[in-house]
Amino acid sequence: MTEATARSRGRSGGRAARVAIRSARDIRMLPGLTRALPVCELMQGAQVERIDAASMAILEDIGVQFRDPTALRDWRLAGADVRGDRVHLDRGLVRDLIATIPPEITLHARDPDKSVALGGAQSIFVPMTGAPYLRDLDDVRRNPTLADLAMFHKLSHMAPALHSSAHHIVEPMDHPISHRHLRITYSSMKHSDKTFMGMTTSPKNAEDVIAMCKVLFGADFFDTHPVVTGNCNGNSPLVWDETMLGAMRAFCRANQPVLCSPFVLGGANTPANVPASVAQLNAEALSALAYTQVIRRGCPAIYGHYLSTVSMKSGAPMAGTPEISLMNHMIGQMARFYNVPWRSSSNLGGAKTFDAQAGYESATTLMATLHAGAHYIWHSAGWNEAGMHCSVAKFVVDAEQCAMAHRMATGPDWSGFDAALCAVRDIGPGGHYLGHPHTQDNFQTAFFMPALFDNNAIEQWVADGSREITARALDQARAMLADYEEPALDQGVDEALRDYIARREREIPAAEALNQDH
Amino acid sequence: MTEATARSRGRSGGRAARVAIRSARDIRMLPGLTRALPVCELMQGAQVERIDAASMAILEDIGVQFRDPTALRDWRLAGADVRGDRVHLDRGLVRDLIATIPPEITLHARDPDKSVALGGAQSIFVPMTGAPYLRDLDDVRRNPTLADLAMFHKLSHMAPALHSSAHHIVEPMDHPISHRHLRITYSSMKHSDKTFMGMTTSPKNAEDVIAMCKVLFGADFFDTHPVVTGNCNGNSPLVWDETMLGAMRAFCRANQPVLCSPFVLGGANTPANVPASVAQLNAEALSALAYTQVIRRGCPAIYGHYLSTVSMKSGAPMAGTPEISLMNHMIGQMARFYNVPWRSSSNLGGAKTFDAQAGYESATTLMATLHAGAHYIWHSAGWNEAGMHCSVAKFVVDAEQCAMAHRMATGPDWSGFDAALCAVRDIGPGGHYLGHPHTQDNFQTAFFMPALFDNNAIEQWVADGSREITARALDQARAMLADYEEPALDQGVDEALRDYIARREREIPAAEALNQDH
Repeated sequence: MTEATARSRGRSGGRAARVAIRSARDIRMLPGLTRALPVCELMQGAQVERIDAASMAILEDIGVQFRDPTALRDWRLAGADVRGDRVHLDRGLVRDLIATIPPEITLHARDPDKSVALGGAQSIFVPMTGAPYLRDLDDVRRNPTLADLAMFHKLSHMAPALHSSAHHIVEPMDHPISHRHLRITYSSMKHSDKTFMGMTTSPKNAEDVIAMCKVLFGADFFDTHPVVTGNCNGNSPLVWDETMLGAMRAFCRANQPVLCSPFVLGGANTPANVPASVAQLNAEALSALAYTQVIRRGCPAIYGHYLSTVSMKSGAPMAGTPEISLMNHMIGQMARFYNVPWRSSSNLGGAKTFDAQAGYESATTLMATLHAGAHYIWHSAGWNEAGMHCSVAKFVVDAEQCAMAHRMATGPDWSGFDAALCAVRDIGPGGHYLGHPHTQDNFQTAFFMPALFDNNAIEQWVADGSREITARALDQARAMLADYEEPALDQGVDEALRDYIARREREIPAAEALNQDH
Repeated sequence: MTEATARSRGRSGGRAARVAIRSARDIRMLPGLTRALPVCELMQGAQVERIDAASMAILEDIGVQFRDPTALRDWRLAGADVRGDRVHLDRGLVRDLIATIPPEITLHARDPDKSVALGGAQSIFVPMTGAPYLRDLDDVRRNPTLADLAMFHKLSHMAPALHSSAHHIVEPMDHPISHRHLRITYSSMKHSDKTFMGMTTSPKNAEDVIAMCKVLFGADFFDTHPVVTGNCNGNSPLVWDETMLGAMRAFCRANQPVLCSPFVLGGANTPANVPASVAQLNAEALSALAYTQVIRRGCPAIYGHYLSTVSMKSGAPMAGTPEISLMNHMIGQMARFYNVPWRSSSNLGGAKTFDAQAGYESATTLMATLHAGAHYIWHSAGWNEAGMHCSVAKFVVDAEQCAMAHRMATGPDWSGFDAALCAVRDIGPGGHYLGHPHTQDNFQTAFFMPALFDNNAIEQWVADGSREITARALDQARAMLADYEEPALDQGVDEALRDYIARREREIPAAEALNQDH
């Protein structure tokens, strides 16, 4: 029997087992991923130590620029060797500082059932953020509005494998830049009761996020519980700027976890070499992780990075290339070596549309991130065109991919093994399982059936209109949005949030050109 | 700096390093993959033993149907407990028999530089086979001809990461079924000098393949060197049929490696349970592996499988689902436990077109297969629509994905580490690497640049005609075919092969409806 023609065998018989597939959409959030999949230990111990030694030598000999007077003063007081704006960090000091970073963090959601842990064997999926364009429900590429952002927050709320609604999944271009962080934060809080992220576009914006979190969670709870993550990007090579450092201080002082994320475009702002790029990135991450502990000893912090390699044809970041996978495996090992939670990025695409390129790129980064053992798996839904747009179609497909990844990394379920072996005895050689009671009892849970992959015969697919995945995914997004129910928010809290925003919008000139970066 | 807007940073500066990207196509075959990527050991030792014990109990208590009088006679002579057509295999006998399977195989190509090893840390990529349709150079789905098959053999020959031209990548429907195996074998031999596969559609057809291999390699060389692989599919659950067993005997007697491949559609011909499906598949594979050693002690053999899970909506096999990845990891561990080379399948797609679904499915199976440590990575290029068609566009993209996978699984190159660290010192904080001599010397080799992924800015992509990956890939296929040069074949050998085919086509009635299955 050929492997191609034999495929039809499964189609015969056992229709009883194939009827009444549950069609109601299940939007219950999956728990945070507890990994059974082993981490990929690409480097031997001596290689891990070689990277560590190279990074420490970079920190000691070259130093890191902290372009921020407060940080330089903090570092001097902490005993670092500060020369101009260059901070030279002794490896003993670095190791001492990062030793107090908690290896695991519980991120609290306003629905306590949706709180999640990260670090160790615990991982979470977080959708993409920061897109200046979207591909909308008609697959048209355009600037996003606050309503578009709300749409993505609703989809995040309903996607079982997404553990966060993040923050500015798309940039709401219809609102003044100086007010956006308020509207974005409110949208995250209002449209979903999952965990979320806080804007770090400026120190003052970060303070606004913190003030709003105190309203949402209550000041007492907020002071003792991580509820919001802030991302701070480094300017590779070896620079941290004032905006990021100011926002970092706001989050760390409030005991909220910061992602310390060097922004690496391999070959452009790192050497054209895999292990040396990792050594530089690692030095950058360590310098910021250490600084979080200068700000507040024991505050939670996450080893981060945005990582790509650069096309030497266009200068643009690529996705799904082999070196990105390799660097993910290596960086994951470094984060485990230092025993800190680790953020990576997944489901990245550089394609301009949701074509096969986007599929290859996304799945490759997702699988690499999973095997690498990332804890905070960011940009997990929607990212295409190197982050220039968030695609609605890709968003819902990626979210299902995360659910599949969740299932895979959870590992096989052995509880039904013996019962299933009894079915093997019942059926015997040459039999068929589809009609067996064991199959009927277990088929819905045993094997994942992706709703957005078409596995019909071509005749059925043609009869259904010959629709590719983009069209099917947009249908699914529309259906989800039609079903969306806003999670209840205490009316007093809601009013207090709106009051806060109204007051701040009066205080902050709409025309003020605040730094958009974060 | 936001992660989305910062992407543009890489575009500035350093144009000198980005000019003159080598545009000449390099068709030199990559050596067989020597893995540095660690294998994913999903199961603990006790779980491996649990699968082993379950499989051995299946072989002892349930037994396996060998629907073939010769095999039953062979088994009786080998000391098995044969009841009717059911062979009950004692675990001691199984372990004794499989112990003589060579853990590594060198497959010899007619160009000795293209011989490859598999087993241990050695893996090879082999394109898909068996498609009754193709999507052609115009992306039109139709029945294939012998000319189409030749086209795929040419593309296989020119794709650096494909280590084999396989056999019937597509079924040449324009030739009588009873003559096809002759034309297919000749096409493999003629259009490429890489390794290839032999048809196992019947015992007689297998004998024809062997006779042609003797012509191509010389009888003396052939008798002592593996030069052709034959695939034998089992009929799960627990059946081997006469056609497959007869072909298996032909290959094993000739000391040529057979892939012992249970054909598993999880949920249809195995229980709806992951570990129990693995236990059944493992029992099936072991029964055939053991039989190869009954046929000829010490002959090479490969632990195979075709593995899918079945959509309970359509009964069709799915690709890229989490359980397929998990089963690959588990089966890989079993093959290593028995110390035999292992075949899996990669780049599988169930999509009807080369859309994002196909991309996700293909990349997911490729990454799973890589991490699982498969040696003979089959169906690595072209497979879509669950094997019903081979897509030219997908074929060339998959082939590039294999090159990327090859690079990834080879692991990072540490040789330039110290020199690259010197560049970090040169550049220092805030600098740019694109203009540095180290970058200019290394950028072409440091980071893989996929030719078929578009990483241009959208403005450039629009200026280039807004073309998705399918159109770009078909251009690449046309360009490759225009450049194709047939590898030289000794004229006497070529004539002898043609003579053999002519004689056999006179002997075999064109109308004879030989078993098409294999």
